[in-house]
Amino acid sequence: MSDIIAAVAAAGAEWSAAEPQRRGRALVAVADALTGAADELVPLAMSETGLSEARLRGELKRTTVQLKLFADVAVAGAFLDVRLDAADPDFVLGPRPDLRRYLVPLGPVLNFAASNFPFAFSVAGGDTASALAAGCPVLVKAHPGHPRLSDRTASIVRAALAESGMPADALGLIHGQDEGVSALRDERIAAASFTGSLRAGRALFDIAAARPRPIPFYGELGSINPVVVTAAALAERADRIATGFAASVTGSAGQLCTKPGLLFLPAGAGFPTTAFGDAGPHRLLHPGIVEGYARRRDEVLGTKGIHVLREGAVDGDVAAPTLVETDLATFDEHRDTLADEAFGPLSIIVRYDPAAALAPVLADLVEGSLTAGLHIGTGEDSPWLREVIGVLSDRAGRLLFDGWPTGVAVTPAMQHGGPWPATTNPTTTSVGTAAIGRFLRPVTFQDCPPTLLPPPLRDDNPWGVPQTRSAAGESARWGRLS
Amino acid sequence: MSDIIAAVAAAGAEWSAAEPQRRGRALVAVADALTGAADELVPLAMSETGLSEARLRGELKRTTVQLKLFADVAVAGAFLDVRLDAADPDFVLGPRPDLRRYLVPLGPVLNFAASNFPFAFSVAGGDTASALAAGCPVLVKAHPGHPRLSDRTASIVRAALAESGMPADALGLIHGQDEGVSALRDERIAAASFTGSLRAGRALFDIAAARPRPIPFYGELGSINPVVVTAAALAERADRIATGFAASVTGSAGQLCTKPGLLFLPAGAGFPTTAFGDAGPHRLLHPGIVEGYARRRDEVLGTKGIHVLREGAVDGDVAAPTLVETDLATFDEHRDTLADEAFGPLSIIVRYDPAAALAPVLADLVEGSLTAGLHIGTGEDSPWLREVIGVLSDRAGRLLFDGWPTGVAVTPAMQHGGPWPATTNPTTTSVGTAAIGRFLRPVTFQDCPPTLLPPPLRDDNPWGVPQTRSAAGESARWGRLS
Repeated sequence: MSDIIAAVAAAGAEWSAAEPQRRGRALVAVADALTGAADELVPLAMSETGLSEARLRGELKRTTVQLKLFADVAVAGAFLDVRLDAADPDFVLGPRPDLRRYLVPLGPVLNFAASNFPFAFSVAGGDTASALAAGCPVLVKAHPGHPRLSDRTASIVRAALAESGMPADALGLIHGQDEGVSALRDERIAAASFTGSLRAGRALFDIAAARPRPIPFYGELGSINPVVVTAAALAERADRIATGFAASVTGSAGQLCTKPGLLFLPAGAGFPTTAFGDAGPHRLLHPGIVEGYARRRDEVLGTKGIHVLREGAVDGDVAAPTLVETDLATFDEHRDTLADEAFGPLSIIVRYDPAAALAPVLADLVEGSLTAGLHIGTGEDSPWLREVIGVLSDRAGRLLFDGWPTGVAVTPAMQHGGPWPATTNPTTTSVGTAAIGRFLRPVTFQDCPPTLLPPPLRDDNPWGVPQTRSAAGESARWGRLS
Repeated sequence: MSDIIAAVAAAGAEWSAAEPQRRGRALVAVADALTGAADELVPLAMSETGLSEARLRGELKRTTVQLKLFADVAVAGAFLDVRLDAADPDFVLGPRPDLRRYLVPLGPVLNFAASNFPFAFSVAGGDTASALAAGCPVLVKAHPGHPRLSDRTASIVRAALAESGMPADALGLIHGQDEGVSALRDERIAAASFTGSLRAGRALFDIAAARPRPIPFYGELGSINPVVVTAAALAERADRIATGFAASVTGSAGQLCTKPGLLFLPAGAGFPTTAFGDAGPHRLLHPGIVEGYARRRDEVLGTKGIHVLREGAVDGDVAAPTLVETDLATFDEHRDTLADEAFGPLSIIVRYDPAAALAPVLADLVEGSLTAGLHIGTGEDSPWLREVIGVLSDRAGRLLFDGWPTGVAVTPAMQHGGPWPATTNPTTTSVGTAAIGRFLRPVTFQDCPPTLLPPPLRDDNPWGVPQTRSAAGESARWGRLS
């Protein structure tokens, strides 16, 4: 395995030094190659994961669109955050030198692939795309849930890189938990990304932090994704909310990190759960998830005070949706059992008293989450609601109104992250163009002769990237707020 | 102490919600109050630290200018990184909702003050200014080297906050190592910053990472700050280089994290070291630094193969500069002793063969550093030089040409950070306007009714902050690189 890391690290020099146009073209070539191999890859993914063809074709498209988006991001160059401070003899603290700052690639990135998105969070998924766009070579640790798909994907990516004149070793692939841990401890690895369970993510985070030379570890872990429905919303459109909720919980058998795991409903109001009956049993991704889901389902169903609305069996590796209901007091009493993520088709309805304050209760009960949802009445506004919004936006990376968190758009303003335990690092995202920022570090050139400057820092700006300039004399005005 | 954390956390709600203009005016008021108290604070700092009046008056000015700069940063709002994606029915992956993303304060920040900058890296220093500007309340753990100055500074800051109509508890102060560790473990603390030694920083980093809920820990640790002088530069201006080097090593008795600790000189060329004789003995900051410096000095002086150019004594808490010289082979042989930072007035000259490649040697010998320096001849350029630049910019946060790293301008393009062991997080800076990014996390509002949006995300943009917009229809063009 050390040979693979050496090859990836060596390829990094050429990959990181390449002009953005070359890196961008290579990413587009990778996307096109994956699209061209869809009829081979999708059936392979179906057989290894049990996910549906429609879901997997959509996911592959998302993956290739994501690669193309990051090609654009690499070429546009805003991610370099170029800052040029003119030399300033009149600087308020004494003469200021010429300072030119931009972001450079961190170095080889180790990407632990996820099981539940065999394309979009795996070999050629978002972490890989954003790291490559940043200029970092990537070593992927394959998920054991789809090893053959991982091998084929890596082969296609590597061939496409080579065909576009770039080093195939800008992407490497390893298999096995021990190999992943060894790589995480390897001095040549400069950062790591991970999507998976809280337990595995915590263990890897601890290893990364305990290294002689600690490295950034970007883990996306568990998330309960609470959704609050107000009395006004339920009065307006209970059926629509119930249908959307059922689809969001049961799609892909609930094996999505943004699945709504808690639904807060006003006490006493009707809420049709028949839509849950439409979702049939669905194969789970792999034995680890079957075991974990069955255990969590049993814990929830065995909790005193829980009212079972629909009990879906786990039969072999196939599960049907389960829905339970309780009240705030019971949930609070058994929070250690109920507030943990159940990765699979299970959700918990919690009834609250709409005449009492909900925000303090949420502040106490809800941990960090990737998303939080709110369904409110048309034009609804109140201090009660604003307090709930305050707590939910304090706990989550994305706050949705009148929508469901599953289905994450890949766009500039997307945020896929959140406070612990949703992630190991709340300051970043793993989806959307801002994800590139995880794999960069700043370097400033001071009084560098123009001919020796890196291209993005030059006044003639050969790459045409955005440059933010601070003129001489500005410091005299600092603190004179207009 | 728990009461102080509770007060700081409670003040955070008001501080973070305040309009930028209010936060900015409060920061300016703090700066003005500190400036007004200079005649009280500077003598107090002199008595506690042994630093000179001129140095401390300059540092206080830097501190107040920094507060005013961050007031401007808070008001200008670019740090919010507002991204507005229009809802897009034709989005390439299916209809895209309205997505609005910005950065929000992380929460209460624990700031471990440094000893060597009793103003600029202490109670009202850069970490405090950037965290307050971000909207985070700050709990400062005072450095034991200047406890009375810390108390007075905190009192002045708190009074100025209150007088500008903001909560005084947006800044709190604690003393003592145990109290600092307890605060670092406290659930209410959302991030921590630190400037100090590798040993203490590593210990605190480990505590932050081992919390049940880990938090970002931004530690600025040790740094050797290598400087390379080419044969051409030395031929042109040996005297000027020698004078600058001596001033940079001996200023503030070398107790600066950017002190050049290694000077790579071409073998055989003359290099006058008489300027070192001009620097007299200087009191060191506190007993811990005296002990550590004396030990490191003894280790260096006791290393076989070292040629002592100037042996400066350590007498009580007073030290005179020490300069030694060796060759690459000897340095390599004793790298465990010689390559560690010596925090005080000591530097090591390493002679290299100008006819041989230097870059691979540097790549092997030089660890992560806050800065690296290069002195080159006028118009000098060669593959040899470009390789050296490549290695140094790979190892450092700031690469200086024909200058000395001590004296760090507080400006947008400054970078004060670098790969381990210079810092615990290479993706950030602790000086310059970008330092604000350490204390923020992204939140996206999806399909939020306009009246419920936070001000920076509204289309009418009441705070007048920069907003980056992605229009509908753009996704069809992704990957079509021009």
